[in-house]
Amino acid sequence: MKNYLTQDPWRIVEEGFHRDYNEITESVLSLGNGRLGQRGNFEEKFTGKTLQGNYVAGVYYPDKTRVGWWKNGYPEYFAKVLNAANWIGIDIDVEYESLDLNTCEVRDFRRELNMLEGYLERSFVAILKSGKELKVTSTRFCSIVDDESGAIRYAITPLNFEAKITITPYIDGAIRNRDANYDETFWDEVRKETGYGEAYIELRTRKTGFHVATGMCVAIEQDGSKVDYQSQPIKYEKYVANRMTLDCRQGQETVIYKYGVNLSSLNYDSDTLILEAHQYIQRITRKGFEKMLYEQKQAWADKWKTNDIIIEGDIAAQQGIRFNIFQLNQTYTGEDERLNIGPKGFTGEKYGGSTYWDTEAYCLPFYLSTADQKVARNLLIYRYKQLEKAIENAQKLGFRAGAALYPMVTMNGEECHNEWEITFEEIHRNGAIAYAIYDYVRYTGDEQYLVDYGLEVLIAISRFWSQRVNWSAAKQQYVMLGVTGPNEYENNVNNNWYTNYIAAWTLRYTIEAVGKVKALDTHKYAELIDRIHFREEKELANAQQIVDKIYLPEDEEKGVFLQQEGFLDKELMPVTDIPKGQRPINQNWSWDRILRSCFIKQADVLQGLYFFEDEFDTDTLRRNFDFYEPMTVHESSLSPCVHSIQASKLGMKEKAYEMYLRTARLDLDDYNNDTEDGCHITSMAGTWLAVVKGFGGLRIEKEQLILNPYCPDNWQSLAFKIRFRGALLQVTTTQQDITVQNFSQQSITIKLHGENVTLAGESQQTVGVSVAA
Amino acid sequence: MKNYLTQDPWRIVEEGFHRDYNEITESVLSLGNGRLGQRGNFEEKFTGKTLQGNYVAGVYYPDKTRVGWWKNGYPEYFAKVLNAANWIGIDIDVEYESLDLNTCEVRDFRRELNMLEGYLERSFVAILKSGKELKVTSTRFCSIVDDESGAIRYAITPLNFEAKITITPYIDGAIRNRDANYDETFWDEVRKETGYGEAYIELRTRKTGFHVATGMCVAIEQDGSKVDYQSQPIKYEKYVANRMTLDCRQGQETVIYKYGVNLSSLNYDSDTLILEAHQYIQRITRKGFEKMLYEQKQAWADKWKTNDIIIEGDIAAQQGIRFNIFQLNQTYTGEDERLNIGPKGFTGEKYGGSTYWDTEAYCLPFYLSTADQKVARNLLIYRYKQLEKAIENAQKLGFRAGAALYPMVTMNGEECHNEWEITFEEIHRNGAIAYAIYDYVRYTGDEQYLVDYGLEVLIAISRFWSQRVNWSAAKQQYVMLGVTGPNEYENNVNNNWYTNYIAAWTLRYTIEAVGKVKALDTHKYAELIDRIHFREEKELANAQQIVDKIYLPEDEEKGVFLQQEGFLDKELMPVTDIPKGQRPINQNWSWDRILRSCFIKQADVLQGLYFFEDEFDTDTLRRNFDFYEPMTVHESSLSPCVHSIQASKLGMKEKAYEMYLRTARLDLDDYNNDTEDGCHITSMAGTWLAVVKGFGGLRIEKEQLILNPYCPDNWQSLAFKIRFRGALLQVTTTQQDITVQNFSQQSITIKLHGENVTLAGESQQTVGVSVAA
Repeated sequence: MKNYLTQDPWRIVEEGFHRDYNEITESVLSLGNGRLGQRGNFEEKFTGKTLQGNYVAGVYYPDKTRVGWWKNGYPEYFAKVLNAANWIGIDIDVEYESLDLNTCEVRDFRRELNMLEGYLERSFVAILKSGKELKVTSTRFCSIVDDESGAIRYAITPLNFEAKITITPYIDGAIRNRDANYDETFWDEVRKETGYGEAYIELRTRKTGFHVATGMCVAIEQDGSKVDYQSQPIKYEKYVANRMTLDCRQGQETVIYKYGVNLSSLNYDSDTLILEAHQYIQRITRKGFEKMLYEQKQAWADKWKTNDIIIEGDIAAQQGIRFNIFQLNQTYTGEDERLNIGPKGFTGEKYGGSTYWDTEAYCLPFYLSTADQKVARNLLIYRYKQLEKAIENAQKLGFRAGAALYPMVTMNGEECHNEWEITFEEIHRNGAIAYAIYDYVRYTGDEQYLVDYGLEVLIAISRFWSQRVNWSAAKQQYVMLGVTGPNEYENNVNNNWYTNYIAAWTLRYTIEAVGKVKALDTHKYAELIDRIHFREEKELANAQQIVDKIYLPEDEEKGVFLQQEGFLDKELMPVTDIPKGQRPINQNWSWDRILRSCFIKQADVLQGLYFFEDEFDTDTLRRNFDFYEPMTVHESSLSPCVHSIQASKLGMKEKAYEMYLRTARLDLDDYNNDTEDGCHITSMAGTWLAVVKGFGGLRIEKEQLILNPYCPDNWQSLAFKIRFRGALLQVTTTQQDITVQNFSQQSITIKLHGENVTLAGESQQTVGVSVAA
Repeated sequence: MKNYLTQDPWRIVEEGFHRDYNEITESVLSLGNGRLGQRGNFEEKFTGKTLQGNYVAGVYYPDKTRVGWWKNGYPEYFAKVLNAANWIGIDIDVEYESLDLNTCEVRDFRRELNMLEGYLERSFVAILKSGKELKVTSTRFCSIVDDESGAIRYAITPLNFEAKITITPYIDGAIRNRDANYDETFWDEVRKETGYGEAYIELRTRKTGFHVATGMCVAIEQDGSKVDYQSQPIKYEKYVANRMTLDCRQGQETVIYKYGVNLSSLNYDSDTLILEAHQYIQRITRKGFEKMLYEQKQAWADKWKTNDIIIEGDIAAQQGIRFNIFQLNQTYTGEDERLNIGPKGFTGEKYGGSTYWDTEAYCLPFYLSTADQKVARNLLIYRYKQLEKAIENAQKLGFRAGAALYPMVTMNGEECHNEWEITFEEIHRNGAIAYAIYDYVRYTGDEQYLVDYGLEVLIAISRFWSQRVNWSAAKQQYVMLGVTGPNEYENNVNNNWYTNYIAAWTLRYTIEAVGKVKALDTHKYAELIDRIHFREEKELANAQQIVDKIYLPEDEEKGVFLQQEGFLDKELMPVTDIPKGQRPINQNWSWDRILRSCFIKQADVLQGLYFFEDEFDTDTLRRNFDFYEPMTVHESSLSPCVHSIQASKLGMKEKAYEMYLRTARLDLDDYNNDTEDGCHITSMAGTWLAVVKGFGGLRIEKEQLILNPYCPDNWQSLAFKIRFRGALLQVTTTQQDITVQNFSQQSITIKLHGENVTLAGESQQTVGVSVAA
């Protein structure tokens, strides 16, 4: 836990330079616009602790797999998020002295991420070794309007001297991933160009052959007027720059505007990439920094209109939730169905890959409720387009006849994880992908999606489950052997309740979806089953048989589902019995000790009871919560949110709040001591879930929006916005009453604490909490 | 399966050069003397496919661990068997043409490993590009008399030319391990010296700081007389040589004698290592090649006197068993208690480490029956000396109070394996180390060993088991969760029958051993329990409770023990149901598929029934054999021997013979397609077990030697030798009768097919097979 960042409702502020925490701050202050992003690095040279990071969405590198012991079936490579050309660089030299905050004295340092308006600001005074004092202020953003570009305003003022100052804005493509398995270079240079104040470099990724052209254009102002500077082009291997030397008077502000653009061959013909970059940069340069920034602020205002959550009476909580929402919006905009939500977004490269089951289980509901329907739909389409590769993946593991196993981690649909107990066995992810289709259709009512895409995916996943279970002669039931459930502190277990349940549920839902699709579009259905050789009668009968005879371990005496078979053979004890200083156990205990302990990394049975809450009564939830919660160490960032939601549902307000705090400020407070690697982007959606599904009690039942909101005890009020089938609502709950505002034109009937409430277009209603409770 | 090596009772012969198989041949033709060894490489330069390999016993390198995903508890390094300086090299240049079998034509090539006398011979005619024909013959051995040295006789004869021939005997220390994790160099040069025909180099291993001085001395003869050659010393980085150019007439044989020595700081003061090497080499050079070779032949004759197994009527089987015995003797002599039996011996570096549970479970019985008692005792002492590190190892995994977990693989007592399901969970190895003490005491009657060393180890291992089990409230029994049994095709299972059984057995045996030691030497016992804080009453009571209440999974209906809990939930099918082309499954199936299949890599329940045969009746063995054998794929080299023994016991002669063949010629025929990495040294002891404990039916019961020999149907006779408590016996069984010869002076009463037979000193008895059966 660190507390060096100032708490503020809309800003993340670092007052004074915390040199040792710089990599943490860089992660937290990352910028992104869904297409490109970067860590909160300095523009000028910095020789201290830093992870320079620039990322271009969808551009990856298949790094050669590194393992200790090869297991048959491992993929050859792991798709790494590629650290790309650094386009923000502006070196400043004052008469042979470099500006470098690592070597000079720093005064009045301040960094601020403005979440309301979407930019990063920094100011400081550097005292060089010569005693010269230079004031610097910079403002930088990645434009969400011109979303392949960013802009920087970098201003320098000599405070106690006048001198020739050399300014070198550059693009550096000689970049390596810190997490490269064999310390290889991933980029080759293709070409570079320089012009007056301009420079371009085109790089190509090895193996994958992505081209990325990075361009810059520089304008300089002194005394409010454009300076007609002399520009000296510089070219090194994978590096281009323009150097200019200016006379700077004492007290005179010199402003450098640097415009940057990153175009990739994902979106452009690689033959004309530099030309396109040139045109793009001309356009934004003409638009100018101030106009771009103005548009940025407007665009962020629009986002907050549908996204914001307002907490009164708890600044830490307020800042936390806004930070989470801000980063989610920076990471994924849903405009490109080829993209997804990487675990670190644009804030770091660790873990690689861009898509885990986090997307479906945690992120989808956030985008469903806060963005246009097409955003969530694109997340589904992403998986649909990778179906063929999921089928190939299953074939590698011995499955046949169109069975699909979606990868644990992927960029392009191919598995790139390499830990057998996860890669091959944490197969419940397949269920989450099926569940996401259900969740999307339930929320949006878009049943046509099932016809066009959904059913095909459901059938392929169901085929996998049908083959993955086997008949146990001993039990006279279907069992599923050798899996890892959501709780990764158990590996290679038999009959994980969650996995068995979601498998059987998928089969049930597929049977139901077949019926729906047949009814909606017989012709398309016939076309589909012909194309994928679906033998309806046989496959559905088989599915039904598995549904009827699936083994779901439970203990009747305790009235709980068993996380897996044999769970009760463990020595059961609460987390509070773990000796002090031994937590987190994953940093203190050997793996086998963790495995055979009863301690749970992440909601497992409770995750299932969350997904399928309609199928279980509250007493069942309570018994399972009371049984599992005390044994859960929440060493996954994805765990506390589910427990928070469940605690809210059970009326355990304190527990719900405690669990909420665990996720909301995870990165701001560097709770797990690993924020320097990047932020936990996907778990940020979990924070949102804890608020909206937990405190807000949002559910969908029979096409209707259900809300059971309450305000945590120490808050004055909680207000959140949600979209639902064209409507935009704001739900505000205080300790006294609950107000629902309908911002849209259409009228909507919701169920609020069990009562139907009809809101006319652009209206609001307030009910007292005592009425509601 | 490859069949290019000639079958011969005493020789391994390659007729004609099999270029593509060269690395396999190099493994098979390896030489060793327990202290040093080497692959069957060529002396002269060879640019073709080769793995140059020279090894010095006990000298290792802690290579930095390479894993994909770090698990807490993994060791920092993996002790690699170090590929050391190449001292056999002799480059031959004929007027600017190098002798290199990869680039010249080769005629009349023949290589032979003489197992009877312990040397390697090679002869060929090389036709150089210039048309010059050079005849070469070489003889090489690693001396078991002067066991830090080896010698080479390398003779060249120009067949159709006369010329100046340049001869460069050298030592090359610029060696890398092919299996280095990060392609690092493991050796640094300390110093080097050259003299007339002599050269020395001293290298030091990085990190571990072992010093090894390698020296050579060269003598040359022409026309049977010593040649007074001109020697030009050459020194490069980690390389020393002496170059000499000789006039060679057509038809004249020039003989190069090269003596090599390797002294390590394990045995010498590193300050005087080169001096010692110089003295050593002077001594053996004075002795001369012929005398050294004569002594070598004598020494091997002595070894075969007590080791040989003679099979008549089956040359392939005869060659196979002799090859296995030969390699075992080359690998370990038992003279140094710091050494052990590496999985590849001196035949390759793969897998690293020198000690697996193979030593106790497979190799110990071989040395018990064929070598002086001190050899087996030294194997035990090796573990005793590493007890402290085994306690530390257990501490790392959370165990306390003197509990010991011996490592899965080790060089110096520290764990160096890094695969969690093995490193942390394949803990049955601890049981095998306890069992070896029992086995040794049972075979030798040396109960004093228990007093001096054995009990201390037993208590430490028992403490581990006592802590590793836990009380299952559900079962009201002790369970052991999260283990990997001998069958590594199951990982992280609960209640592996074998592991639970050997754990409980260890506790029983420890209780018994405490009683014995107390009776034998109260004083020493008191000293011991004081030193290790053994709370006798409490710890023994606890042990007894676990023994009484251990959960041992079985199926009463089928009358079989369950390999692990839940085994009967699997889809059970025989190996014969695996589709053609899918075996070995470990090369064709993904790991998860293997894990959830019923297929067994290696004897597991049957291994337990072999160790503890006195505790189960034959019907129980038969039921379990009939149940498990059809599901066993024997993809471990250590599996078929146990099945062969069990089949012999059950009178299933054909199965016993089939299983015997699987191990006996494993490397000679490259059965698993991996002999190029080195030979499977430890499984060679399994071959011996299949003969002596299987066909020979050797057991020890109540201090008596039991024999139930039979001759496999297609053999004329089988004869094997065994030592037992000072006696040396030969058991010869034909299809008609069984003869037992007693070579020793002492009389001995054995049980032969259930009848007591007393053999006076130097006598023999023969009984008819019909009587015996």
